Parts: sequence; structure tokens; C-alpha cells
Amino acid sequence: MQKFDLPRRLVAEALGTALLVATVVGSGIMAEALTKDVALALLGNTLPTGAMLVVLITIFGPISGAHFNPAVTMVFALKRELSANEALSYVAAQLAGGIIGTMMAHAMFALPLLDASLKMRTGGSQWLAEAVAAFGLVATILAGIRFDRAAVPWLVGLYITAAYWFTSSTSFANPAVAIARSLTNTFSGIRPVDLPGFVIAELFGAVIGLMLMNWLLRGGGEGAPMTKEAQL
Amino acid sequence: MQKFDLPRRLVAEALGTALLVATVVGSGIMAEALTKDVALALLGNTLPTGAMLVVLITIFGPISGAHFNPAVTMVFALKRELSANEALSYVAAQLAGGIIGTMMAHAMFALPLLDASLKMRTGGSQWLAEAVAAFGLVATILAGIRFDRAAVPWLVGLYITAAYWFTSSTSFANPAVAIARSLTNTFSGIRPVDLPGFVIAELFGAVIGLMLMNWLLRGGGEGAPMTKEAQL
Amino acid sequence: MQKFDLPRRLVAEALGTALLVATVVGSGIMAEALTKDVALALLGNTLPTGAMLVVLITIFGPISGAHFNPAVTMVFALKRELSANEALSYVAAQLAGGIIGTMMAHAMFALPLLDASLKMRTGGSQWLAEAVAAFGLVATILAGIRFDRAAVPWLVGLYITAAYWFTSSTSFANPAVAIARSLTNTFSGIRPVDLPGFVIAELFGAVIGLMLMNWLLRGGGEGAPMTKEAQL
Amino acid sequence: MQKFDLPRRLVAEALGTALLVATVVGSGIMAEALTKDVALALLGNTLPTGAMLVVLITIFGPISGAHFNPAVTMVFALKRELSANEALSYVAAQLAGGIIGTMMAHAMFALPLLDASLKMRTGGSQWLAEAVAAFGLVATILAGIRFDRAAVPWLVGLYITAAYWFTSSTSFANPAVAIARSLTNTFSGIRPVDLPGFVIAELFGAVIGLMLMNWLLRGGGEGAPMTKEAQL
Repeated sequence: MQKFDLPRRLVAEALGTALLVATVVGSGIMAEALTKDVALALLGNTLPTGAMLVVLITIFGPISGAHFNPAVTMVFALKRELSANEALSYVAAQLAGGIIGTMMAHAMFALPLLDASLKMRTGGSQWLAEAVAAFGLVATILAGIRFDRAAVPWLVGLYITAAYWFTSSTSFANPAVAIARSLTNTFSGIRPVDLPGFVIAELFGAVIGLMLMNWLLRGGGEGAPMTKEAQL
Repeated sequence: MQKFDLPRRLVAEALGTALLVATVVGSGIMAEALTKDVALALLGNTLPTGAMLVVLITIFGPISGAHFNPAVTMVFALKRELSANEALSYVAAQLAGGIIGTMMAHAMFALPLLDASLKMRTGGSQWLAEAVAAFGLVATILAGIRFDRAAVPWLVGLYITAAYWFTSSTSFANPAVAIARSLTNTFSGIRPVDLPGFVIAELFGAVIGLMLMNWLLRGGGEGAPMTKEAQL
Repeated sequence: MQKFDLPRRLVAEALGTALLVATVVGSGIMAEALTKDVALALLGNTLPTGAMLVVLITIFGPISGAHFNPAVTMVFALKRELSANEALSYVAAQLAGGIIGTMMAHAMFALPLLDASLKMRTGGSQWLAEAVAAFGLVATILAGIRFDRAAVPWLVGLYITAAYWFTSSTSFANPAVAIARSLTNTFSGIRPVDLPGFVIAELFGAVIGLMLMNWLLRGGGEGAPMTKEAQL
Repeated sequence: MQKFDLPRRLVAEALGTALLVATVVGSGIMAEALTKDVALALLGNTLPTGAMLVVLITIFGPISGAHFNPAVTMVFALKRELSANEALSYVAAQLAGGIIGTMMAHAMFALPLLDASLKMRTGGSQWLAEAVAAFGLVATILAGIRFDRAAVPWLVGLYITAAYWFTSSTSFANPAVAIARSLTNTFSGIRPVDLPGFVIAELFGAVIGLMLMNWLLRGGGEGAPMTKEAQL
């Protein structure tokens, strides 16, 4: 993981987050333009997002770890796998990449490059949904790394595919993506004023996920024997 | 499999069943809210369920075996891979987790935490469908473990994806999930009074699946040579 | 492959074909009942079929080869991997299994067990489509076995997922399944009188596929070195 | 890669491109015939295309590399992995295969074999979309080969699944496919007069992708150790 230098890792984080956000925002624009059925539009938003996550985590994971998500970077910083400086650089790259992603999607669909969203997403139920979404994402990543590292891109893509539908918030689960989505007044947008509730809930859910998995995975021995068993 | 202690295994069963039920119930609520086309709603219920099963079985399988299903636990108890006490603890954890899952989904969508279903699901055709669904699930799991253990999370996710559509009951195939679904008056619900028929049919189908696969897989030699051949 | 005795192999062929046909017919009934949009119904027919193929080929492949298809059995007989007697037994098991599958689907949906289809599927374009569909299926299987045997269940499931949509006949590509589908007057049916055109076209396409792949794959060396390269 | 002779490699490129185009064009015809909802039609076009790409790259990759795309062939020629002569032969085979694919699809749906498209696809936004689409495709292929070669068929299939939706042009990303699609006046067509803009944008995006990945991947050491790390 440490074999790529920091500039390359930051480019991977920024580019990956940009492509992820371009997929979320762009497919939302496409879907909304083509149908009036909102379930179908959500499906047209879900499948590209899940598919792209598998691709991006596979191709950028060996370079930067493929976080694309400040909540995930925070988890690895808390686990001492990233220094505070690295973590801050990662988050900055993710935030910049996310905004570039929104601009890319808008440019491809001939919209103004940035446009504050008017879509209300707030209230206790949605905050709970974001906390659950981030909790599940962190649990998926940490257990995935422990038991079947090669499957992590698939696990995250499939988890988000499910979470788009089972959470009332459609599972942003990512502060950098949430901020980028506040700058598009299309299907996938969120009002800037609603960001704090989402971001706090996401970070909270991520910390709970880290704590629970720290306890749950502290069994079964460590290292090679376990890995071997998991692959049998 | 025995390397994680029983408390961790029970938490894995409860948490996995909770997330599975939250996905089934939550995606049903989301789908029903977004479209009037029932086939599209079922698709919005199917894809998240299949995707989440792959994730949950991958991340909890090495801890508890990732049954999430009393019919599956019964099969492994009959095969003497779990003691009676372990099996009863598993089932209790699954039942509790399932009900928590329904409550989580309801809380995320701002509904009353529990609400008995009014959706009628009964009659010989649906009982046959549940028996077939559970038979196929057990066959998939037992042959999957024998021939390609690493693929089992995928096989189960894909099997349930198909079974949502080819059975008239939409394939509950799981007594703990059926009970949890009796407590939601939404898309995926089932009247509490219809539970016994479903549960009996599921257990019956599971036993038939166990018996047939016991005979069918008793060929081709056991252990390493077979495994090797299966992977060529 | 030869390690399971013939009775078990024939049960695997019959049971696999039955579950495949039950999936095709059952999901067609479900889809047609839930929506008036035919594209959505075809999607609700496609995804379960593709998913089930991955499952069935994985779990029955090591027992019988998981043909479930007289055209595929014919190809392996022409390649001398099955004796004439074995091939005839396979085809009989597939035909019986297919008809049982239609009956299972009908019973689960409370329909008469067998009911001749009135759905016209005939004409040169559809026969061409069936020949192309079977050609592609055989090419997928033969090249898949050569280059990445473990991927064959996925390749066949994905190929059929695509072929449902790119062929005007929705790609039956399987004489046993075609005959079983002539006995259901639902979404996936075909008039009995249209069977000969479909079956002949399927066998023709399969033979062309065998001939072309025999030539195309006769390069690159044989055995271990190639296998190793294919997996790098 | 060099173990198959040039004629076989060219047949693989032509046949693969033909089946890819037949899938794109044929599923578009099917989808458009079955529904009036354009999002659903695009979904019925997307899923078969993504599924078929996984199949075709798996079964033809070990023979020819499975480019099916002059932009990809150009990238490998620039990387000196193909001679100029080989590259030109590849492109000719892809162009011929693509046109045969359109004819196959038309014949299967009883349409005139070739028919110039009237569908306008032009303008700066769409050209940007094509450049982004080809950039992402090349990045996916080059990083995929570096980090997880066996996953490349899946990565390309998933990438195109996403790109159909997040780009305003529905991501042709392939000059041979674009030319073949100019010869069908159906869902997936493009006016012949709009081809130059698309082709130039695709080649431009591919070159940018090559340059960026050349820099980004030039870290972390080369060869076996990296490959091993990527698989941990």
C-alpha cells in the first residue's frame, strides 16, 4: 500500500472521487430525463453507481486504498493506518475531486457547471438512515479486508446498490460525495443547508461501525491461518 | 468455523439477520413509494436483497457461518455440525435480529416501529412455492459448500434473486425473516395468521433438500481430490 | 467428471433442467401478472434466468457437466466426451426434467399442470436468431472451458442474459427447454407446431459453433502452459 | 498473447466485434419495440451490452487481446505491444466485424440489412462525454491489466454499464462500434455525419487516458511483487 508516493495516491483519490461523483450525478440526470417513474430513475442511478464502485476500487485500491470518502479515511486514521497529515491530504483530494466530478457531469449534460441544490433531505429518519448506511459501509469494508480482501470492490459496490434502496436517504454515506451533490440541482442533489445533518450522521455511523467491528473481529486468531480458513 | 466464540457468533447471526430484514423491508417500502408498477417494485425489492446477501454472507460467514435462517440452522444441526444448544441459540439470535431489522427499516422511513401485516399470503400453491424455495436454497448451499465454498455468498444471492420471481410466494424461504415480515404492513409483509403455513412448508422443503443432496453428493469421492477437480 | 455414477448424473441433469425451466416459466408468469410493460416483463424474465444458470451450473457442473440442453450434449458427444448411450440418457433426463419444470411452475402459480402454448414464434428471422443464439452459447462454453473453466457458470448466465435481448426469438437456444415451454400458455410459451423450426435451428447453430471453435482454439498450444497464461 | 497466429487473432477480433455490435443494436431494437419508456429501453440496452462484454473479453482475450475497438488497439500500438501492421489489421477486422454485427442484428429482426441512421448525436457536450468515456475505458483497461488481469472482462463490462448512463452520449467509446451504429436507423443509431466528432473525441480521450495512466502507474515497482501485492 505504501509503495506509491503521496502525489500519485492523492491523484488516485481525487480522480476516483471525481469519477464516482460524475457517475452518481450524471446517471441521475440521464435517468430523470428519460422517465417519469421515480423507481426506474432510482434504478438507473443505482446500477451505474454500484458498477462504477467495483471498477474504481479495483483500479485505484492498490494505489491509494480507494477510500474516496472522508468517513472511510477517518476510520483508517483512527486505526493508525494513515497519519493525520496523510488523512487530511486524502480528505482535501476527495473534496476537490468530488466537486470536479459534479462539474464534469454538468459539462457533459450542457448544464451550468455548479448549481446549488434545492432538494430537501433532512429530519431524524434520514439522519438515522445515513448513520445506518455509513455503519454498514464501514462494517463491510473492515470485515471484507479481514476475510476476503480481493472481494472488497465487489462488496462495496453491492452494499451501496442495496443501500440506495433500503435507506430512506438513498445512502449517501460519504461526506465528500454529499458536498459535491449539494452543488447539483438535479435528481441526486441535496440542499447545502442539509449537509451538516448528513455529514454528522455519516461520521457517527462510521465510528460505531469501527467500534463494533473492532470487537467482533477480535476473535478467530489473526493473520494467515484465518485468511486460509476464510478462503476454504 | 469454531474459532470465534459463541457470543460473537450470535452477534453475527443477529446483526446479519437484522441487516437482511432491513434490506427486504426497507427496499420494499422505498419501491412501493416510488412506483405504481408492481413488477418494478418487485425488481426494486429483489436487487437489493440479492446484493445484500452476497455482502452479509461474505463478511459474517467466517464468524458464524452466516445462516440468518432457522431452516438452514436446522439443516446443519441435522448434519451434526451444530449442537442442539448452539442451534437453539442461533435461532433465538435470528428471530431477535429479524425483528430488530423490521424496526430499523420502519425507523428509517418514519413509520411506527412494528405494525402487524394485513397482506394475505396463503393456500396450497404458495405453500408449495415456499417448499420449493427452501429446497432449492438448501440444495444450493450444500452443493456450493461441497464444490466451490468461496462462491457460496454469490450462489445464495443469485438463487434468491431468481426465487423472488419464479415462486408465487416471492420466496421467503426463511422462518425468521417470515416472522419479521409479519410485523410490517408494507410491500414485503405477510399476515401473522399466514405464518404457520409458510414456516412449515419452509422446514419441509429444507429437509427434502437435505435428504436429496445427501444422496446426490455421496459420489465422486470426498475431500481434497474432489475439491481440486471442481476447481479445474 | 466421471467420478459420479450415471444415475446421479442423470438426476443432476433432470433436476437442473427442471429448476431452469421452472425459473423461465415461473418468472414469466410472475412478470406478466405484475406489469403491462413488456420490456419490464422481459427484464423480470431475464434476470432470474441468468442468475439461476450461474447457480445451477456451479452446483451440478461437477456432477454431470450441467448441460441441461440436448444441443450441448450433442456437442460433447461429437467431441467424443460422452458415449452415444450416455448422450441419449442425458437427453432423456433433460426432456423429462424440462416437462417437470413446467409442471412445477404451473403448480406454484395454481395453473393447470400442462397447457399447450398458443404463442406463435416462427419464420426465417426467428430461426436465424435461434441459430445465432445456439452458436454463441456453444462458442461461449467451449472457449470458456479452454481458457477459464471456473468462470463457465458466469459466462453462460451472462451470455443468456444478453441473448434474451439481442435475438428476436429471446434465445431459447435449447431444445429441451423449447419443448417444455411449448407446454405453458404463458409469457415464455411457444406453439408446439413451431418447435421443429426452433429445434433444427438450434442444433444447426450448435454444430457451426463447434466447427468454428474447433478451428479457432486449435492454436496457442494445449494444456497447462495455455491454462497458465490465460490465468495471468 | 503471441501464441495464436494472426489469422485466428483477426477472426477473434472480427467475431467479437460482430457479436458486440449485434448485442448493442439488437437489444436496442428489442427494447424499443417492447416499451415506450426510454429509461427502460436504455436499461434493456445496457444490461445485455455489459453482460456480453464480460463474455466476449473472457473468451477472446487469450486469443487476440479482445480489443474490439480501434481506440484500444491504438493505445496498445502506442505502447509498442502491437506492430503498426498488426494494429492496422486489427482495426480492419474490427470495422468489418462491426458492420457484420449490424447486419446480423437487422437480419434477426427482419429489417433491411443496412440503413443509415437519422439519429442526431452531436455538439460539444456529447464530444466531451465521448472523450470522458474513452478516457475512463482506457484507464480501466490499463490499471486493470496492471493490478488484476483476470478481472479485466468484468471491469470493462461494469465500466460500460455505468458509462451508458453517466455520459450524455451513452458512451459509444469505440470508433468501430460507432461506425457500425451509423448503419442502423434504430434505438442505438448515430447519423453518419456525426461520426467524425465522436471518433475524434474518442481517440483524444484514449490518448489522455494512456498518458495519465503511464504516469500514475509508474510507481509501486513493476512485475511480480506488485502483482502479488495487488492480489493480497
